[in-house]
Amino acid sequence: MKPIDTAALLAVARDEARTGEAEGGIPIGAALFTAGGELLGRGHNRRVQDDDPSMHAETSAFRAAGRRPHYRDTVMVTTLSPCWYCSGLVRQFGISHVVIGEATTFSGGHDWLAEHGVRITLLDDPECVELMSRFIERSPELWFEDIGSDATARG
Amino acid sequence: MKPIDTAALLAVARDEARTGEAEGGIPIGAALFTAGGELLGRGHNRRVQDDDPSMHAETSAFRAAGRRPHYRDTVMVTTLSPCWYCSGLVRQFGISHVVIGEATTFSGGHDWLAEHGVRITLLDDPECVELMSRFIERSPELWFEDIGSDATARG
Repeated sequence: MKPIDTAALLAVARDEARTGEAEGGIPIGAALFTAGGELLGRGHNRRVQDDDPSMHAETSAFRAAGRRPHYRDTVMVTTLSPCWYCSGLVRQFGISHVVIGEATTFSGGHDWLAEHGVRITLLDDPECVELMSRFIERSPELWFEDIGSDATARG
Repeated sequence: MKPIDTAALLAVARDEARTGEAEGGIPIGAALFTAGGELLGRGHNRRVQDDDPSMHAETSAFRAAGRRPHYRDTVMVTTLSPCWYCSGLVRQFGISHVVIGEATTFSGGHDWLAEHGVRITLLDDPECVELMSRFIERSPELWFEDIGSDATARG
């Protein structure tokens, strides 16, 4: 099997993030692929669009991929370091490899996943950083809501 | 505030699990409450009913509760020890307390949650054990699918 083109996979997730931004939502996108690069499902955060707090980008892509007997040799690509919720998804379902656009604006559970044997590829993509930076500056409260960061506790 | 009646909260989750069983689905139920016992959302596993692998009982209850600015002082009650996916949900959103029907038929991430400051109440409820034992005996492959347990790797 030829080496996986992680930049090409990230482009799919980034397109999803941009679609989310254009819809007025949280600009995080993700997609699930086979190790051979076949697309299984793609999606973006749908908190705003569907009033659904459970649809982070990764869960949205996972859902779009439908029911599968296992996730051995699948690759989750996401524009942003996965939060604990989405990291838990990866660990529970045994997704083998996570490709991450950036972990500069937010760092979730990817080190924990690496400790548990998940291959992590962090791409430090400037366009992903720009998308999130713009969003967080524009809508900080929406961002804090999406990651369950308590405004009161932040003081 | 009077002490929370964890058995009464579990009864709501168990009703959800029984509804799931009656629908031909995976009999796991959950509900999200305030610390004062107000119901915010309830749900059950919907893998079979909606062909949706992302709707575990806890995510289903979380979704039903709708968008909230934070989850401080909320209680997640579930008939079964939360898997990594659902444990990640609890940690990310800062849910304070998890009430668990049983951890005999499956043990997920509740010790990890306790290490990270989440209050855990394990009730060892025989009806929850019976519901899951019956299901796993009847439909082992469906159960393994729901927790991403790879039949090939199991040998």
